[in-house]
Amino acid sequence: MSTLYYTLSNTVFRSFLFYAVASVLKMMLMSLLTSRQRFRKKAFANPEDIKPGKEKKIQPTTSDPDVERVRRNHLNDIENVIPFVLIGFCYIACNPDPNIALWHFRVFFFSRLFHTFAYQIPLPQPSRALGFIIGLVATVSMAIQILLQVY
Amino acid sequence: MSTLYYTLSNTVFRSFLFYAVASVLKMMLMSLLTSRQRFRKKAFANPEDIKPGKEKKIQPTTSDPDVERVRRNHLNDIENVIPFVLIGFCYIACNPDPNIALWHFRVFFFSRLFHTFAYQIPLPQPSRALGFIIGLVATVSMAIQILLQVY
Amino acid sequence: MSTLYYTLSNTVFRSFLFYAVASVLKMMLMSLLTSRQRFRKKAFANPEDIKPGKEKKIQPTTSDPDVERVRRNHLNDIENVIPFVLIGFCYIACNPDPNIALWHFRVFFFSRLFHTFAYQIPLPQPSRALGFIIGLVATVSMAIQILLQVY
Repeated sequence: MSTLYYTLSNTVFRSFLFYAVASVLKMMLMSLLTSRQRFRKKAFANPEDIKPGKEKKIQPTTSDPDVERVRRNHLNDIENVIPFVLIGFCYIACNPDPNIALWHFRVFFFSRLFHTFAYQIPLPQPSRALGFIIGLVATVSMAIQILLQVY
Repeated sequence: MSTLYYTLSNTVFRSFLFYAVASVLKMMLMSLLTSRQRFRKKAFANPEDIKPGKEKKIQPTTSDPDVERVRRNHLNDIENVIPFVLIGFCYIACNPDPNIALWHFRVFFFSRLFHTFAYQIPLPQPSRALGFIIGLVATVSMAIQILLQVY
Repeated sequence: MSTLYYTLSNTVFRSFLFYAVASVLKMMLMSLLTSRQRFRKKAFANPEDIKPGKEKKIQPTTSDPDVERVRRNHLNDIENVIPFVLIGFCYIACNPDPNIALWHFRVFFFSRLFHTFAYQIPLPQPSRALGFIIGLVATVSMAIQILLQVY
């Protein structure tokens, strides 16, 4: 008998939905932080973003260090959160042990939360590197479990 | 009884497939627009992309304003379209009202279409900001509905 | 009768899981290649990444050509591999012919593998362009098949 994995009655999928959506929302927050920094530093990337007539000397820029720090963080999220969600969706079909799966999701989410704080405060290294590596290991561990099962 | 949500007989999933694929194709179109601008402006990022012998003075560049405008648009799509599709997949499992779901998908897709025109023409602000915010609200609204249901 | 497509007993989904996970892992490898180049060239993007006291003259940089080459490759993967996985997930629901589907997945994966070698060695053009276009065609072909079925 084939079973349904992609339903709310499956505990693994339910906890995945929570951590996947939370991770994506965390990532999307970086867009708003970028906007905030652009307005604060008056560092806009496009000429049409600069209010005309008011301040004559503002030139478009893509090299403000505070804006670029948030943007690098955002790109790092894209490089890590999206693979986590994609691989997580695949992982559900492999019917993993609920506890093992839950810890993968938790560890990933909190490591990325820590990574963001480490990047934006910023904390001295290797704080940020640690947050990055722990999240990577969680995702790669799910990937290996999938490959072993479908190969 | 558990029901199947991820099948073509589910109207919500069917309309999601349409708008998700359309949004991703729109995003992928930016790759081709970037190539077009690179050839038009002869602004290539890699030395091996420049035709040898023909024009001696061309240097690789990553700062042509027209190319960079398309690239920023592409990156903004990645930051918004991919979260929409990922969260949309999760949203399906929550069995939302077909009409409410359909309007989320529609609003998202057309706000991103408008965002692209506003970025590339370009239209005066706050046109582009509006396209961005409306799409963001649609995605965040789906995310909140999921979190309320699985928490 | 509605059938289950998102289970390991479906051959198409099983081969999709393999190639989707393999493609995402290939993409994630670029993060590690970027780190390696940053250490090799001592080209760090953030001031806190530079070991204090040891070498005084190192300044943060985001323009080292070897680091930027890997980063462009990574971004190109994001622009192509993620759409493939997202559209692939949608494609499964359309119950495609297993052989046709398998060849789409295979062609995509190996074209992206070739693209990475072409970018990093680098091979003379149009090698890289070819790898890019073949992968794009595989993804767009799946997208069209979905749109035809759900429209």
